[in-house]
Amino acid sequence: MSDLPTLAQVAAEAGVSPATASRVLTGSVRVSTSTRRQVHDAISRLGYVRHRAPRGGAGRRSDQVVAVVVCEPAHRLFTEPFYARMITTVEEVLTGHGVPLAVMTATAATSTIATPPLVAGGVDGVLLVGARDRHPLAVTLAASGIPVRSAGRPPDGIDLPHVDMDNRDGGRQAAEHFLLGGRRAVGVIAGPPGLPASRDRLDGFVQTLALAGMTGVPVAYGDFTHSSGVHGMQWLLRRMPHVDAVFAASDVMAAAAVQTLRRTGRRVPEDVAVIGFDDAPIARRISPALTTVRQPVEEFAALATRLLLLSMTSADTVRNNPMLPTELVVRESA
Amino acid sequence: MSDLPTLAQVAAEAGVSPATASRVLTGSVRVSTSTRRQVHDAISRLGYVRHRAPRGGAGRRSDQVVAVVVCEPAHRLFTEPFYARMITTVEEVLTGHGVPLAVMTATAATSTIATPPLVAGGVDGVLLVGARDRHPLAVTLAASGIPVRSAGRPPDGIDLPHVDMDNRDGGRQAAEHFLLGGRRAVGVIAGPPGLPASRDRLDGFVQTLALAGMTGVPVAYGDFTHSSGVHGMQWLLRRMPHVDAVFAASDVMAAAAVQTLRRTGRRVPEDVAVIGFDDAPIARRISPALTTVRQPVEEFAALATRLLLLSMTSADTVRNNPMLPTELVVRESA
Repeated sequence: MSDLPTLAQVAAEAGVSPATASRVLTGSVRVSTSTRRQVHDAISRLGYVRHRAPRGGAGRRSDQVVAVVVCEPAHRLFTEPFYARMITTVEEVLTGHGVPLAVMTATAATSTIATPPLVAGGVDGVLLVGARDRHPLAVTLAASGIPVRSAGRPPDGIDLPHVDMDNRDGGRQAAEHFLLGGRRAVGVIAGPPGLPASRDRLDGFVQTLALAGMTGVPVAYGDFTHSSGVHGMQWLLRRMPHVDAVFAASDVMAAAAVQTLRRTGRRVPEDVAVIGFDDAPIARRISPALTTVRQPVEEFAALATRLLLLSMTSADTVRNNPMLPTELVVRESA
Repeated sequence: MSDLPTLAQVAAEAGVSPATASRVLTGSVRVSTSTRRQVHDAISRLGYVRHRAPRGGAGRRSDQVVAVVVCEPAHRLFTEPFYARMITTVEEVLTGHGVPLAVMTATAATSTIATPPLVAGGVDGVLLVGARDRHPLAVTLAASGIPVRSAGRPPDGIDLPHVDMDNRDGGRQAAEHFLLGGRRAVGVIAGPPGLPASRDRLDGFVQTLALAGMTGVPVAYGDFTHSSGVHGMQWLLRRMPHVDAVFAASDVMAAAAVQTLRRTGRRVPEDVAVIGFDDAPIARRISPALTTVRQPVEEFAALATRLLLLSMTSADTVRNNPMLPTELVVRESA
């Protein structure tokens, strides 16, 4: 089609030279942050995608490699159980196809370091995990022409094929369980507001309560870590000493909330009901066992990997964005 | 030097064609396992290293990338605390140098999948972790001409620059602590016998006991996992019901041994003293706190990374192989 935007149009839209726009796309560090942002905005507005000739022609090359890029600091790979489940499954699927996996991490701050090797052509497909806000790497990858699949809906304004969980419906199920249980003083420990999965969980939860006439629900924002769960619960207790139900956006934060509640002498679930999210191994390990919203992480990881492999071997990008259901698992904590 | 072995000589030594020898070096899957082994043996005997022109000439390219390759199944990245500490530190050092990190895993069985992208020129340096026996990837990397640094002494017959811990001296210190404490019925839960670090820990321990006249020490071999620690301890108890001291080659296995001993009604350290290895976070978390041999994992990882970066920027390979000291940390379990 002749109306696909060109790099020259991106440069004009951003008010920079074509050479500068090109440097942004190759991840060069010799571009100021504000210029990079202008170019990223222009890319998003125009929906620019670099035309990239298939590497090595027809058929699979033997040195193909897929990168999983987790948009977090490296140490989070080892403390967040979601990534362990996700990456282990991705590796199993890729190994079954004879494709090697490279795991990389990139925060917004370190994305200029991670970008060049990804867009230089050494990587044949990228599975992007946990991109939030307008993560610069997500914008660059969307424009790179490299096969990319986002595990989780990408942030608004970034057009990437993806696989998602029905996070919103998970929030709805948690809210309905509290409503059916007669809970009246409900708080939330949400995930980072810039992450679509966090926002969807929160929206589904809060909107369901609002339909039942419960508004003004207090929300503490955590980052899925244990310590943020403790701080979030402490904040909710100060704000709402008679809280009788807490929805946490991850099991790690829910477990931290349970621990914090018991340290203040409150019984779970008698005084305060707690619902987590994930159905991670920790949900069954703690006492009382966590009631939680199960997300099918392994199925999600396998599906995202298979769709990525498909777009690496087919000329047409596979544009469907499947969503997997979530399911409330009732145990002891709520 | 004109007497450096050539690929043709490797092929002749292995009794294969030069094309076949070349295919082994590029990690092609179209070579049988036995042929690959013949070529690997010839490479090791002759000390062949491929001559590789520096990529992109002088100066650092902006798309340089370092790979950490862990010789284990992917799920072990997330269950073995040593890898978390190691990789987190490597990433910190590389980020400080503006170099991106890709983490890969490769067992002996999957090494043909991981080899091609590593040797095809897309990776500028490799930090090899946990290579045991004659891991095919370790042999291929040693011959590849790519800058490689092994974190831990490589297996015998594989010539790679490395950084090591004084594992042997750590074993010696553990043995002396038991001897000074008057322990007389001593058992070992060792690591995999093909891993140099495991062998050194065991040798240092057993040889020190032998010097004191204690021979025939029973050895259970584990693989550093919790469950192998449980099985190892159960085996030792059957073999030696009056065991009064156990040296485990990792803290995870030592913690499993403590748990198993207490389940049989034995007190630690009163009935049985236990010494671990690592000084991992778990050593302080369990009760009684573990007496253990501390290995300076962060210092080790940082040093290996810096030496690798040095060999990536300098024409001469840095051939010194430093060894970091280990240190017995006496807590409650022995």
